[in-house]
Formats: sequence, structure tokens, C-alpha cells
Amino acid sequence: MKFVATRVVRFADCDPAGIVFFPQYLVMMNTLVEQWFDEGLRIPFAQYIGTRLTGLPTVRLEVDFTAISRHGDVLTQELAIARIGRSSLVLHAEFKGGDELRLRVRQVLVCTSLATHQAQAWPDDVRAALQPYLEKDIRA
Amino acid sequence: MKFVATRVVRFADCDPAGIVFFPQYLVMMNTLVEQWFDEGLRIPFAQYIGTRLTGLPTVRLEVDFTAISRHGDVLTQELAIARIGRSSLVLHAEFKGGDELRLRVRQVLVCTSLATHQAQAWPDDVRAALQPYLEKDIRA
Amino acid sequence: MKFVATRVVRFADCDPAGIVFFPQYLVMMNTLVEQWFDEGLRIPFAQYIGTRLTGLPTVRLEVDFTAISRHGDVLTQELAIARIGRSSLVLHAEFKGGDELRLRVRQVLVCTSLATHQAQAWPDDVRAALQPYLEKDIRA
Amino acid sequence: MKFVATRVVRFADCDPAGIVFFPQYLVMMNTLVEQWFDEGLRIPFAQYIGTRLTGLPTVRLEVDFTAISRHGDVLTQELAIARIGRSSLVLHAEFKGGDELRLRVRQVLVCTSLATHQAQAWPDDVRAALQPYLEKDIRA
Repeated sequence: MKFVATRVVRFADCDPAGIVFFPQYLVMMNTLVEQWFDEGLRIPFAQYIGTRLTGLPTVRLEVDFTAISRHGDVLTQELAIARIGRSSLVLHAEFKGGDELRLRVRQVLVCTSLATHQAQAWPDDVRAALQPYLEKDIRA
Repeated sequence: MKFVATRVVRFADCDPAGIVFFPQYLVMMNTLVEQWFDEGLRIPFAQYIGTRLTGLPTVRLEVDFTAISRHGDVLTQELAIARIGRSSLVLHAEFKGGDELRLRVRQVLVCTSLATHQAQAWPDDVRAALQPYLEKDIRA
Repeated sequence: MKFVATRVVRFADCDPAGIVFFPQYLVMMNTLVEQWFDEGLRIPFAQYIGTRLTGLPTVRLEVDFTAISRHGDVLTQELAIARIGRSSLVLHAEFKGGDELRLRVRQVLVCTSLATHQAQAWPDDVRAALQPYLEKDIRA
Repeated sequence: MKFVATRVVRFADCDPAGIVFFPQYLVMMNTLVEQWFDEGLRIPFAQYIGTRLTGLPTVRLEVDFTAISRHGDVLTQELAIARIGRSSLVLHAEFKGGDELRLRVRQVLVCTSLATHQAQAWPDDVRAALQPYLEKDIRA
């Protein structure tokens, strides 16, 4: 199963070269993960962070920017899990404009305690919610 | 030769977990490259973009976030070149807080025409200015 | 007539105090205006900027931040016009969380040429599209 | 007494119109206040927020954007106090590029408890540090 969301490229996302400023794609990626928690996993991300005091920092990021995106483009963002560890998660994402691949992301995230910023095992309900998004055929 | 610049972690860089929001490190990385053009290469980046209409998009990014940074931390940012191609550049950067490595970046950038967004060979003066920052011992 | 859009407060909008970082409200305001052009005025904002080369800089901004917003809050954003000039526009906006007013914005924008950054009269189609959103009872 | 700091306009500050994106000026303003705490008031802002758990939200903002700023411009930012209340502060700031005024800001901030987000009186040491920056001749 994949989580899919669309995102219009806004003026605020673009740089003087008239295309998406690359760090802004990572802001989009962060919000995609948040939407996935809210709408896909049904674990409200604001509670995950603010009430349960669990964190989700990124420890490794690989991005291939394969084509540019311009102001007004509609991006289709797809997200799936390549691997679930004891306290880690490897996500694969692709952003497309129509049929054109714009970027491919491999992101390693870790479940932490916000009190200590140390890794901790996934809570059972989060692990259970993640499972359906694990794609068996993805090379982690 | 390396280009070195310090950067204080500001309130605006941090997230509700009280640490640097990871896309913000990429904004810092972008500004580090810009400072390097201005102060290291002596090729004013605003002219490179705005007058010469050359671009410098990122086509590949790899980041290892090895430790968190907090509001008020002073980051030492080091930049060197791992490889110079006909129109590409592989940068290696490290951000440290004191002796602690916070992140390690490998970024592939390409020289483009802003008219077409297509790759073009490095202008001679840029290539000459880049050369001293090429580190022979870095695995590209 | 008012233009209304909702916006979830995302992790990326919030600061170490756990609330929306105030400049981020202005990014939201900018995107609200863009959505209003796209969906309300039916003048695609990316074309207004990128094809027609008209700009829409802000020349005056007044904001009252009357209550804080937290991560996960759903904001209802309402926009109307207080005054239309030859080349200017006075917008009034309110962001609410439920019944609670979070901020009130008065923003003066100007139609410019992106070639010269000088003010120019509203194109006829834009002026016609703006008209229904002019609220007679708003003090400009 | 005024607090003065310079800031180069970076690529990341600019929008597809090639000029500073207006919310980015407010990020600059926020960092100017932070630098003023650190270097002018000698009250490290990261401690003010993170250790003392005092907040400094903005409750009112007025900005006149009088001229555009471009990538590479060096901005001179000047800050002074127009009024100090029991728990509030009215700041006046001007950003200039050479002799040209780019923006004028009037910002009302409030000292709060980060536990409750309620206003509280200025701590004595902060009030004492603020005093020299109060300009008698400024209309609050």
C-alpha cells in the first residue's frame, strides 16, 4: 500500500531561478509524512509529537532530483515503507509532475523520546499502523 | 583547501522538538555554497545567478544527520570539492558543534543555463576558481 | 463575498515554543492570496506571475496576533477586499481556530510590472474578477 | 542607543520575482531581535527561551515596504525601543540598502511564560538591559 497526496507548487516554494528551491522539497516531504500519519496511519502527528512526546528525526537522507518543478505545477507524492526496524523506518517517496519523475527520496527516520532525544522502540500501535505500507519488493 | 564558515543556530531554524528542523540544514548548506562563491571563489553568487544567468541546481543529495543541534549552538561548516566534472560538482561538507559531527553532506550540483535549465560546461573562470578546493583524497 | 480556505498547522510551521512562528503566518497569507487567485478569481497565479510578468508585492502590512495557534490546529482563513485602487488592493483577512480569532491582517498590495518593479494599473480582467470580493462595509 | 547589524540578502530569501519574499523580512527581523539579545543586551536568547522558559511572541506588527531588495544586497538593520511596558515592548526597526529605506517595522512583543503562554512582567535583568535602547523621541 502507498500513501498518495497531491501538492501544488506555490510561489513561496520557488527561488529566483523560478523553480522549486530544493530544501523546500524536504519541507514538502516532512509534511507528506505528517499527512500520512494523520490520514493514512490515523495517528495524529501533532499528538505523536506534542502529547506522546515521541520524536521522528531524520538520520539519513538520499534524494535524486531528476527534473525541475515550476510554480503552479501539481505534484503527485507517493510514499511507502522499504523497511521497519526496532526503532527505525526507511521510507521511499517519489514526487511526479504528470508522468515525469521530479524527485526520488530515501529517508531513514528514527522513533525517539523527546525528553532524551534517544532512540526508542516503535509504540505497538504505531508499528501496527505502519505494517500495511511495507512494500516487500523495495530494496531497503 | 577547505572553505570554513560558522553559523549560529537561530530560533527560526528550530522546530517544536527544540532542535534544528532538518530541511533548515539544507537552507544553511545552500547559503554556505553561496558564501563560498562570494568569499572563497570571489565569484559573487548574485551575479552568477542574476547577471550571468547561470544556475546551480542540486541533482543528488546525501545527508547523514549524526547528532542533533539545538538553538544557540555555533556550527562550524566545512566545505570541499570531491570531484569537478564538465558541468557538475560533487561537494562534501561537514557541520560540527565543537568536536561533535552533526551532519555530513554529499551534494552533486550542476552548472545550468537559466534560460533553458539545461546543463552547460563550467565557465573558465569558475572552473579555475573551483580548482584549489578539490581534495585529492576524497572519494567522490 | 469572501474567499475561505482551511489550513492545518503543520510541524514545519511551528517554533521551539510549540506555536506557529509568526513569519509563517505571512507565508500562509501569501498562499491564501495565491489560492484565491487560482480558485476564487480564476486567474491562475502562476500565469499572473510567470507568463504575464505582473507582480504583486506587499507595500504595507498590519497584523494583530490575538491568540496562539498550535501544531495540528485547523485554521479557517477568510479574505475580502477593503479597497481597490488604480494599481493597489487593500485586503482584510482573519484566521480563526474554531471561534477563536488568531490573527487579523490588513495587507496593501500593488500590481507591478516584473520587468521594472513599477506599479501599473490592474489589467481589466483582474479588476473585473476582484470586484465581487469588495466589501462595502469594510473600513479601508 | 540603537542596535545595528548587517545582513546579506541570500538566494534563499528571494522569490521568483527575484526580490526578497516579504515573509522572509520578518524572519530577518526575528533573527535581528535574537542577535540584539545575544550581542546587545547580553542576554543569550537561547537561554531566555530554552532555559528560563520565557517567550517573546509578537502581538502586533506594522511594516511599510518602501523599496525592493535584491539578491546580494547588503542590508543595514537598525533597532531601537519606542516603549517598554510592564510585560510588553514596542520596537522600531529600519532596514536600508545604502541610503535607501527598504522597510520600516513597528513590532509589539510580549514577555510570556512558555508554560502558560500568558504575559508576565519583564524579569528585572531583562528590563535593565532594555533601558539604554529606549529612544525618548520615538512616537510609540
